[in-house]
Amino acid sequence: MSAPSGAGKTTLGRSLLEREAGLQHSISYTTRAMRSAEQDGVDYHFVSREDFQRMIDKGEFVEWARVHDNYYGTCLADIERLCSQGHDVLLDIDVQGAEQLRARGLDAVFIFIVPPDMEVLHQRLQKRDTDPPEVIATRVKNARQEMQQASRYDYIVINDKLDEAVQTMHAIIKAEHSRAQRVMPKVRRLGV
Amino acid sequence: MSAPSGAGKTTLGRSLLEREAGLQHSISYTTRAMRSAEQDGVDYHFVSREDFQRMIDKGEFVEWARVHDNYYGTCLADIERLCSQGHDVLLDIDVQGAEQLRARGLDAVFIFIVPPDMEVLHQRLQKRDTDPPEVIATRVKNARQEMQQASRYDYIVINDKLDEAVQTMHAIIKAEHSRAQRVMPKVRRLGV
Repeated sequence: MSAPSGAGKTTLGRSLLEREAGLQHSISYTTRAMRSAEQDGVDYHFVSREDFQRMIDKGEFVEWARVHDNYYGTCLADIERLCSQGHDVLLDIDVQGAEQLRARGLDAVFIFIVPPDMEVLHQRLQKRDTDPPEVIATRVKNARQEMQQASRYDYIVINDKLDEAVQTMHAIIKAEHSRAQRVMPKVRRLGV
Repeated sequence: MSAPSGAGKTTLGRSLLEREAGLQHSISYTTRAMRSAEQDGVDYHFVSREDFQRMIDKGEFVEWARVHDNYYGTCLADIERLCSQGHDVLLDIDVQGAEQLRARGLDAVFIFIVPPDMEVLHQRLQKRDTDPPEVIATRVKNARQEMQQASRYDYIVINDKLDEAVQTMHAIIKAEHSRAQRVMPKVRRLGV
């Protein structure tokens, strides 16, 4: 799952995880400062720039990216552990991270979340009330650039009403479980 | 939607049409004899072999096939009319018909329905109580052959419990509406 800042990705992801028993979140590693409402090991694993670099060097990230001068990464071992337990894994990654994941050829489904319009995106960024106007302006500009990558994703979910967007995400997960390549092993076991 | 006889496709299709307001069934044309419970223009358009051939010659079918000595076809004009009214169109076609539809390059989603196992398929065919044992044996043999084509479809739905299969079909339809190539025109209109 990727989205520009202000598309409502974090809230959507949380609602989805509450609804989907089989879905687990892989907690990303980041070098950015912890916000007041956040918890280490819950929202992110907050690590130093040095520790992050060590993990890059050891090849421990399935994807990592630098965004707004901070680093974010997803640990391959975390994903493998969750998958081996029979879970689907939700990754919250940016367009650079998605590109790395595509290149890895993992069995992944790429979903891009967009705001219903640019005005809503701007409003959501302002409401967050943590960033000065020039940072918001940069985020809006970045959002436009990121949204041009949307066509490289499998699905695009317009996050207008949260509940509808959650239902669409649920439908995508359910449908993808019935993709022919994932069901064929079962069909072959029917002895046809 | 395709399925071998006995996979429960007809019941599944009916339940789905009841649930999905936006979904319409394109009624096929056939040369086979009408069964006692069927109605002309509702279950099929029942036509003579000569009329069917005239429609083939005029190119009126988007797909047609011969199955068990009978002919079945889907009229292109019917689909175009339903689509122009904003509907999704459900086609009930066999593996040969699906192959023709693929070759046409229409914006279609291919779903193959399979029984939970071959024993259930056999039981369902026997329960139908309209066919002599040798016809049932042929249908089981055909079913095995058709199921080998399942990997050419986009989705495979295992029809074990009807309600679950309907929910899966619903999820597939909902998810496909969010496929990136179908949503990108909307994203471009956001002015990114």
